[in-house]
Amino acid sequence: MAPIGHRRWAIAEGYIPGQSLSQEHALVSHEAVCLLNAGDRDAHVAITLYFKDRDPTGPYRVTVGARRTLHLRFNDLTDPAPVPRDTDFSSVIESSEPIVVQHTRLDSRHPNIALMSTVGYCEA
Amino acid sequence: MAPIGHRRWAIAEGYIPGQSLSQEHALVSHEAVCLLNAGDRDAHVAITLYFKDRDPTGPYRVTVGARRTLHLRFNDLTDPAPVPRDTDFSSVIESSEPIVVQHTRLDSRHPNIALMSTVGYCEA
Amino acid sequence: MAPIGHRRWAIAEGYIPGQSLSQEHALVSHEAVCLLNAGDRDAHVAITLYFKDRDPTGPYRVTVGARRTLHLRFNDLTDPAPVPRDTDFSSVIESSEPIVVQHTRLDSRHPNIALMSTVGYCEA
Amino acid sequence: MAPIGHRRWAIAEGYIPGQSLSQEHALVSHEAVCLLNAGDRDAHVAITLYFKDRDPTGPYRVTVGARRTLHLRFNDLTDPAPVPRDTDFSSVIESSEPIVVQHTRLDSRHPNIALMSTVGYCEA
Repeated sequence: MAPIGHRRWAIAEGYIPGQSLSQEHALVSHEAVCLLNAGDRDAHVAITLYFKDRDPTGPYRVTVGARRTLHLRFNDLTDPAPVPRDTDFSSVIESSEPIVVQHTRLDSRHPNIALMSTVGYCEA
Repeated sequence: MAPIGHRRWAIAEGYIPGQSLSQEHALVSHEAVCLLNAGDRDAHVAITLYFKDRDPTGPYRVTVGARRTLHLRFNDLTDPAPVPRDTDFSSVIESSEPIVVQHTRLDSRHPNIALMSTVGYCEA
Repeated sequence: MAPIGHRRWAIAEGYIPGQSLSQEHALVSHEAVCLLNAGDRDAHVAITLYFKDRDPTGPYRVTVGARRTLHLRFNDLTDPAPVPRDTDFSSVIESSEPIVVQHTRLDSRHPNIALMSTVGYCEA
Repeated sequence: MAPIGHRRWAIAEGYIPGQSLSQEHALVSHEAVCLLNAGDRDAHVAITLYFKDRDPTGPYRVTVGARRTLHLRFNDLTDPAPVPRDTDFSSVIESSEPIVVQHTRLDSRHPNIALMSTVGYCEA
């Protein structure tokens, strides 16, 4: 399939709640970014995180295989540094190939979960 | 009315929770895509699903009549294969006519529902 | 202020739950569209609704004053016909002036509310 | 990093619930706008609020430092006037530098929170 998407994305919202009522993996509070690579070449992706009152950290590097999707939790990023909890951040996502990026948060601080999602901003 | 929309869309987020507390149709956990065809010709739509660690499946074929909308649940897709539950996926949606695509999830794993929605990414 | 926005928008998702646990106005289940007219001329807006298996209805006509916003509930539309509950629909929104359109649903079928929101699709 | 974003944004949806069950800062009902400035110069931002039946108020002025993000709660804006609760509004956000804007609401009127989020509309 012809590739679809852009190479440069940003998500202004970012926040990982420090608490979860459940430790079941699917229901732990998380902030995720879904990366779709519909093209025929692997996409090498670099993520940079921005904060309120300190310098950016990154790049965090991941690969999304050709014709694959990766639903990446910011919770799981550790290199070069774990993502702080209960802290506002934003992200810029740069890819070697066109990809499509969508942002989702599951918040399970309370007995019932809350969800939100939006397509990222991409540079036209 | 003049057609509105694009012919090529992508939704990077996709996940059907395997559990629902209610079996009432409106409240079963589902992942849906709303397809609006405001034009005067039927839109023939092909959906391809992308996964983390196996090849894409599809196309799933649906028709959206002229001047009609179709709110399609991924839960209901069965040909060429049912959509696996509790599994991350993405979708690419290709249409013979301009359409508008919006993504929605209702999550009813817990006693109270959670909703999320976003317009799909379209190729400019 | 210089106007901002577009004249032609679409929202593919639409559904008004027939039930609400609360009859308090702010908490009745509703489907809403927020219309911002930041320009210096009144915006005359026509909304057309699309359904799964019958012809479109409309136009529903509203005016958004210059430098004003209107948060319109589909629940409140009655002319030329009320919007059916528990029924999938989509909408196309056409304005005489540039406006910005955002879609929101509050679902209060259950003891706790669920929210979703997304910017509409606009014709570039 | 090269700047990413636009200088002119709008968010048609806006509403701060007057009630919260929790007074814990993270869980107070709020309407927020996340502003990412990935560029190398401070961004001077002016926010104007629009209402249903009175003139706009503003500009509210904030600065987002170079390579910083600011998650701003409309609840916290006081100059030139606090933002009324339980009142529909919209916002236009103008920046001296390219930024990326995302809108989020946390609604904690009820025992369990509801979330929604969407990227703002930007002038192409």
